[in-house]
Amino acid sequence: MTTEQNLDLSVIASRLESLEETIINKLIDRIQFCVNSPIYQIGSSGFEDAENESLFDLRIRHQEEMDALFGRFCVPEERPFSGEIPRARRKITLPPTGLHLDNLNIINVTQDIKRAYLTLIPRICRPGEDGHFGSSVEHDVYILQAVARRIHFGSLYVAESKFRGEPQSYSRMIRDKDSEGLMRMLTRKEVEEKIIERVAEKVISIQALVNRKLRNILEPETVIDFYRETVIPLTKKGEVLYLLNRQV
Amino acid sequence: MTTEQNLDLSVIASRLESLEETIINKLIDRIQFCVNSPIYQIGSSGFEDAENESLFDLRIRHQEEMDALFGRFCVPEERPFSGEIPRARRKITLPPTGLHLDNLNIINVTQDIKRAYLTLIPRICRPGEDGHFGSSVEHDVYILQAVARRIHFGSLYVAESKFRGEPQSYSRMIRDKDSEGLMRMLTRKEVEEKIIERVAEKVISIQALVNRKLRNILEPETVIDFYRETVIPLTKKGEVLYLLNRQV
Repeated sequence: MTTEQNLDLSVIASRLESLEETIINKLIDRIQFCVNSPIYQIGSSGFEDAENESLFDLRIRHQEEMDALFGRFCVPEERPFSGEIPRARRKITLPPTGLHLDNLNIINVTQDIKRAYLTLIPRICRPGEDGHFGSSVEHDVYILQAVARRIHFGSLYVAESKFRGEPQSYSRMIRDKDSEGLMRMLTRKEVEEKIIERVAEKVISIQALVNRKLRNILEPETVIDFYRETVIPLTKKGEVLYLLNRQV
Repeated sequence: MTTEQNLDLSVIASRLESLEETIINKLIDRIQFCVNSPIYQIGSSGFEDAENESLFDLRIRHQEEMDALFGRFCVPEERPFSGEIPRARRKITLPPTGLHLDNLNIINVTQDIKRAYLTLIPRICRPGEDGHFGSSVEHDVYILQAVARRIHFGSLYVAESKFRGEPQSYSRMIRDKDSEGLMRMLTRKEVEEKIIERVAEKVISIQALVNRKLRNILEPETVIDFYRETVIPLTKKGEVLYLLNRQV
């Protein structure tokens, strides 16, 4: 794909749309287990020599350390939740991205994602504990990664694409450090509503044939709220961040 | 859950049924990428100091080393593909399983699973390369784990449950080391056909609302074949292995 295609707004929208299935499927996997709140508590991990981390945080760190070796964080939209990660042990060659940013980690909203996710869990999982702590954190991390990919991909590429559509207006606001103006300018309410409607339809359709005696069901309402309160606003926050830090 | 419930054949069947969605969803994630054959070739991993492993094998090993720390392989149905794995760094307490086997790794058909999976890939993924090598092996490993869980869970618990239903007939065949007799006795053709039919329906239903311009579609026929040629036969192979090694 050329840089021009990369930054075509319809191509970017397709990629964002295709990530919806991934997020929904991973949420469905997670809700087969209870909330299992000890996994989120520091000192309850059961891990040797890890009194200062929850099992959840330990899993994020171990997963990201492994993924870093394989080169995950060389990809612009893959931003890590952990502060320090090892360098890649593979040579990664990426096609030109068309982005104007040297230090991609300036656009990293993972801590916001993590906070929002922790409030989502009790809304989608059955309360209590089932003992499947290892499986629960495993799926937590896959969801965080899928959500972070969606949000950062949008933040970077949607913002760059919109900038190229109206360089003069955006440049003026960037020069004036006008965050609110930028937010207003890049917001497309009708697109947001279309995304939310489509996500809700997918949540229902994907689970249409599920045996409800065996499987817990993901309610479309909670996913709608998560998109409305977290995915979309954090993508826009990332877009504004990108624009304010865009290198000329 | 008590040991008795654990070994109730309808409870076991429910668990196996519930793992179908997981396998299907993970296959759908993988086929969004091309075959990317270099990931399966030794010497093409691009990894420093890893000339003797493919990227696929490296990813399996790294994933399992991490999972082992978190205690995955303390669970009977979670059998590793790698030969040597570190011991768990968490204390894992499992409820009594009702299984009669000390060394669970006697029932490990992972190498058969891996071989079968490698022949599945060119049948479900578009040919060629798209450069997404890291994502492809990541999803490969999640599929292998889900398939192995399904097969080993069936091998262990279905076999123990069937044994308890007819202890005398099974004991005689075990004493005679009559593998073929055991295979005949535990085979339920009508159950196998029902599973295959249900899996095909799920593959269609899960993808009903998918935008075919953006997403690659998993064909039910290939999943039917994979169940018919791999998942079901390897589960039965594991059941026979379990019975032959069952401790009195």
